Amino acid sequence: MECFIILVEPKYAGNAGSVARVMKNFGFKNLVMVNPSFSIDDDECRKYAVHAQDVIENAIIISSFEEANGMVDYMVGTTSIESRNDRHHLRKALMSEEFAHKIHKMDGKVGICFGREDYGLLNEEIEKCDLLVKIPTSDIYPSMNLSHAVAIVLYEIYSQKYEAKEVIPASRMEKEKMYEFFDQLLDAIKYPEYKKEKTRILFRRVMGRSMLSKWEYHTLMGVFKKAIKAAEKK
Amino acid sequence: MECFIILVEPKYAGNAGSVARVMKNFGFKNLVMVNPSFSIDDDECRKYAVHAQDVIENAIIISSFEEANGMVDYMVGTTSIESRNDRHHLRKALMSEEFAHKIHKMDGKVGICFGREDYGLLNEEIEKCDLLVKIPTSDIYPSMNLSHAVAIVLYEIYSQKYEAKEVIPASRMEKEKMYEFFDQLLDAIKYPEYKKEKTRILFRRVMGRSMLSKWEYHTLMGVFKKAIKAAEKK
Repeated sequence: MECFIILVEPKYAGNAGSVARVMKNFGFKNLVMVNPSFSIDDDECRKYAVHAQDVIENAIIISSFEEANGMVDYMVGTTSIESRNDRHHLRKALMSEEFAHKIHKMDGKVGICFGREDYGLLNEEIEKCDLLVKIPTSDIYPSMNLSHAVAIVLYEIYSQKYEAKEVIPASRMEKEKMYEFFDQLLDAIKYPEYKKEKTRILFRRVMGRSMLSKWEYHTLMGVFKKAIKAAEKK
Repeated sequence: MECFIILVEPKYAGNAGSVARVMKNFGFKNLVMVNPSFSIDDDECRKYAVHAQDVIENAIIISSFEEANGMVDYMVGTTSIESRNDRHHLRKALMSEEFAHKIHKMDGKVGICFGREDYGLLNEEIEKCDLLVKIPTSDIYPSMNLSHAVAIVLYEIYSQKYEAKEVIPASRMEKEKMYEFFDQLLDAIKYPEYKKEKTRILFRRVMGRSMLSKWEYHTLMGVFKKAIKAAEKK
C-alpha cells in the first residue's frame, strides 16, 4: 500500500508545513496539494515543516480534485460531520481507528484527502470518495485544525501493528466500471428515477467499505453482466 | 479523574493557542502553563485558539514545575526519546494507546505535561513524573510539533471513551434473507451451476466485511427484488 496525503485547497502555508512535518514524523512522504493558496516556497510553509523540507520539495501540486482521484486506486475522505442519521449515506463514516485497521489490508495507491480549513470537503468531492473517515471529537467544538486532523489519522495508521494481507485490490478503473454496471442494472430493472442517486451513492459506500479484491471484482462483474443482460432481454 | 494539560516553558504563543483548540475538540478544559514566553493575550495565541478562547482565558499560569506537580495527584510526562535499553528506567515509557487505557482507571487529578518545543522535559522533571508516555514515531524524524503531540495524546484518551454512533446493523436474519435473494438472482440469470457455490461464498464475504446497516440492507434488497423479477420475466 502506498499512501498519498492530499490537501484540497489549503489556505494557510503554515498548515501545509505542519502537515509535512507530521507526515515525516510518521514515515509518510507523498504530499499532494490541490490548488493551494500559496507557493511551496512560502516562508511560513518552510518554517513549519522544520526538518521535513524534503516532503515539501517533493509535493505534487495539481489543479483539481478529479486529477487527485485519478492518481489513486482508492480515495478516502475525511470529515468532522458524521451523519447520525443512518439514511445519509453521503457522510456515513468509519472511525479513524477502525479505518487504520483496514488500510493495512489494502494494496495499491490510497489517497487520504483533507478538505479546506473552513469548509472541509465539498459534497461533490465526498461523493467521489470510496470511504469516509471521521475523527471522534466533542460535539461542543468538533472542528479541528487541519494539521491536527492529519496528525491523528497518520498516527493511527503508523501505530497499528496490523499485518498487511496479500490481497490485490480492485483498481480505481475497475471500481468505476462496476459502479457503471450498477447504474446500467438500475436502468435495466427500471429502478425509480427519484431513488437512483441515493442508491448509487449507497452502493459506492458499501463497496468502498468492503475493500474488494480483484478476484471479487471480476466475480461480481460476471453477476452484474448477466443480470443486466437478463433484465434487458425481457 | 480530572485531567490537567501542562505545558512546561512553551516558547511559541501559536502553539499554546493550538493546544487550547485541540483540548476543546476533545473535551478538555484545564490548561496549565509553566513560565510561558508570552502572555495569554498574545495575538498569535488567541488566533490559533479559534473557538477555544475560554480555555486560554481560564489557563493557570505558574512559575515552576514543582508547583504543577503539587496541583495533581498523578503526574504523567511525555517524551519522544524512548529508551531502547531496558535498563534506562528514567525514560522508559508507556505507549500512548496503552496509557489512554490506563488513565480511565485512574482517580483524582491527573497532570499530563509536555516539554519545551526544543528540549522537551528535563531529566529532573522526568524523574518527578509517576509515568512516562511516548508517542510512537519514525526514527528518522521523531520530534513532533508540541500541539501535535498534545492532539494525539488527547485523541487517544477521548476516543477510548467515545461511544460508537448508533447505527443499527442489519440482523443475521436479514443478511441470510439477502444471501437467499442473491441465490435466486443467480438462478434467474442462469449463472453457471459449477461456479455458484464459490460466488455465493464470495458475496457473503464481501457483504460481511462491509457491515451493512438496516437501511442499506433494505435499499439493496429493493434492487435485488427488481433484478430477480426482471430476469425471470424474460
